[in-house]
Amino acid sequence: MRLSRYFLPVLKETPGEAQVISHQLMLRAGMVRQTAAGIYAWLPLGKRVLARIEQIVREEQDRACAIEVLMPTIQSAELWRQSGRYEAYGPEMLRIKDRQDREMLFSPTAEELFTVIFQNGAKSYRDLPRNLYQIQWKFRDEVRPRFGVLRGREFLMKDAYSFDLDMAGARHSYNRMFIAYMRTFARMGLDAIPMQADTGPIGGDLSHEFIVLAPTGESDVFYHENWLHPRDTDGIDADDPAALEDFIAGLNQDYAATDEKRDLDAEAAAGPALRQSKGIEVGQVFYFGDKYTKAMGVSVQGPDGAPVTPLMGSYGIGVSRLVGAIIEASHDTAGIIWPDAVAPFKVALINLRADDAACSAACEGLYAELSAAGVEVLYDDRDERGGAKFATADLIGLPWQLVVGPKGIAQGVVELKRRRTGEKQEMTVEAALARLTA
Amino acid sequence: MRLSRYFLPVLKETPGEAQVISHQLMLRAGMVRQTAAGIYAWLPLGKRVLARIEQIVREEQDRACAIEVLMPTIQSAELWRQSGRYEAYGPEMLRIKDRQDREMLFSPTAEELFTVIFQNGAKSYRDLPRNLYQIQWKFRDEVRPRFGVLRGREFLMKDAYSFDLDMAGARHSYNRMFIAYMRTFARMGLDAIPMQADTGPIGGDLSHEFIVLAPTGESDVFYHENWLHPRDTDGIDADDPAALEDFIAGLNQDYAATDEKRDLDAEAAAGPALRQSKGIEVGQVFYFGDKYTKAMGVSVQGPDGAPVTPLMGSYGIGVSRLVGAIIEASHDTAGIIWPDAVAPFKVALINLRADDAACSAACEGLYAELSAAGVEVLYDDRDERGGAKFATADLIGLPWQLVVGPKGIAQGVVELKRRRTGEKQEMTVEAALARLTA
Repeated sequence: MRLSRYFLPVLKETPGEAQVISHQLMLRAGMVRQTAAGIYAWLPLGKRVLARIEQIVREEQDRACAIEVLMPTIQSAELWRQSGRYEAYGPEMLRIKDRQDREMLFSPTAEELFTVIFQNGAKSYRDLPRNLYQIQWKFRDEVRPRFGVLRGREFLMKDAYSFDLDMAGARHSYNRMFIAYMRTFARMGLDAIPMQADTGPIGGDLSHEFIVLAPTGESDVFYHENWLHPRDTDGIDADDPAALEDFIAGLNQDYAATDEKRDLDAEAAAGPALRQSKGIEVGQVFYFGDKYTKAMGVSVQGPDGAPVTPLMGSYGIGVSRLVGAIIEASHDTAGIIWPDAVAPFKVALINLRADDAACSAACEGLYAELSAAGVEVLYDDRDERGGAKFATADLIGLPWQLVVGPKGIAQGVVELKRRRTGEKQEMTVEAALARLTA
Repeated sequence: MRLSRYFLPVLKETPGEAQVISHQLMLRAGMVRQTAAGIYAWLPLGKRVLARIEQIVREEQDRACAIEVLMPTIQSAELWRQSGRYEAYGPEMLRIKDRQDREMLFSPTAEELFTVIFQNGAKSYRDLPRNLYQIQWKFRDEVRPRFGVLRGREFLMKDAYSFDLDMAGARHSYNRMFIAYMRTFARMGLDAIPMQADTGPIGGDLSHEFIVLAPTGESDVFYHENWLHPRDTDGIDADDPAALEDFIAGLNQDYAATDEKRDLDAEAAAGPALRQSKGIEVGQVFYFGDKYTKAMGVSVQGPDGAPVTPLMGSYGIGVSRLVGAIIEASHDTAGIIWPDAVAPFKVALINLRADDAACSAACEGLYAELSAAGVEVLYDDRDERGGAKFATADLIGLPWQLVVGPKGIAQGVVELKRRRTGEKQEMTVEAALARLTA
């Protein structure tokens, strides 16, 4: 993509409306614009990051045998009356009357609709277990939307709902999502710690929030320092319930809990290894048994012919929130530092002298070769000073900067900078190409 | 994907609620379920088709130099007051009050928001031309939603908005989208005819609707029979304004008009080559000049320093409607016949005897080899009769059926059926693999 034909309205000043760094940087880097309180338009750079995150989430859900569907945003109030949640949900639910005066709402979550859709399609025990998921916009009418996309009103969420015949199955479904979430966040370059969370009236231990540590987080969290070292999930066979349960039980021996689930004995046991921090919730896995299937009268025919009420869990990931959380976890004073897997482009190609024929020819050649090799390049071909181009490249945080100037190019040399480390290396054009296409 | 672990609630009976064939088949094939009047949940098979169509639309928009963004569904009424459309839009607009009693709405289209976002980012003539697009859910509160996804209330739409400095530029932007639409629909296996459409008070000739011929269409359309032969757009250089204009002018010499733009002289000239039919609108390209930029006070600095009011066009494609339109155009009495490019899976692998070890082993081998080669297979591994499996495969309309039975497999032979033609061929396992992975 040529920057001269792109739409990247970067800002030099930090907008006063933004209190946290991710919000400031998303505005400055031309990723989003607020269009109403807690509601954002995603500009080209932001949309690309959102799509990358969405795709990683999708791939790990598919890998975990979840099946993608897509529910409408507008739902009937009737559905929510069946579960008893229509009145209970409160003012965060955006309630709407259509032209026929029917009561509708903008889905803040989708337990009811998934339950009904599942019931419509599943008749017997052979239709279980199933895990259905969607990646869809939700709306929660927060009284104080803030921190940009970290707590917006309209937000993109992955929500999955599992249906099982018995508790052992439900536990395995839960564990599958647990491991899928670890893989999902690790692929995005995030250390997200699964923390014991409240189970409410359901009870039991099957509720975890995945928390990214960040000083701007809204939650206080407490954890064993072992969690600061990433866990390897590569060798785990998620199809083997016992192996998976063992692995997760092993993980959970290291204490980690949100404020509301603190365990002072466990903290004492952790001793000097105990850490306290602020955190941002990016995902939640939660088992709630027959709460919705029972309320909505769902059953399937069991192996012995008798009806069985399926047990459910739900599993959320805040897809749009992750954009902000990743920035909170990965930036410096000059701007964003994208982890490779979610970067909107891999390379910023910087032409230091757009008015120099040899320099521009070299840039065009690099742009063509990198593009042909499938490398995504944002080519700064604008007629601007080098300083402004460097500042923009640092601000938008692409993993690599390939800097081409007239002096270097006369000797066949370019500079390659790694955004994360700041490390710069002069090398031949060929070497740079080899490095970026490897 | 193994059918035994998928979610494909096919129906034997045609639901009484469905009047048109695409709606009937989408319900029967387990692609969608209605969740409220004109509002649909997309089940796994439907979601896959929707994603395929979305991706083709995206690729052709990108190829035409349009830049992807994503606008929120919920917008402020204030924005629509600026353009004067808030009162004018009527009861099709879903109006909402949030918890602060602010007037909001669910976007039925997005001229206003794109205009504002463009203004926020573009300052000078160097920031033009630009074409920004999104693929996002819209809501129009139709008084009589009907025909399934062909006229739903919540629907997925690609909408693009071009911004140009002058009329020549705007015309080229229009032509770019025109050719992009021809390519988009052709890739989906559709003959979509661009028809002169109403320009309203704007005047001029820059308004076309792209219409798929189908007996169940809502519009009467009139066209020269030449349109029944697909046009080759491969050689057209969309970067060359004159060549592009010539090509499109050449196309438009063949008469094609919707009911409201009939030209009886042109019809007389067409003589016996004139055809009349019903059609389904799947896209529209429309130039409207400074209608919104003027109303909303948008300008950029021109080359001479004086402010210029950009000229706009808008370009829509009904992404969810296309799912229905493709089925209307491509089905038979047994079910859907997917064009290859939009098929949810390429191959239905049919195990005729799931209880036969040799037969199942052969199927497992084929499933593994095809999957490893990147071929998307829906493997019917259920314990069902062959007849039921054939009926399901025909109904869901995957391009190829690979049929494996115990007798054939004893001789190393399988049957490959092309859904579109019904042509069946016995061949060795190796030959079938070679054919499907070619």
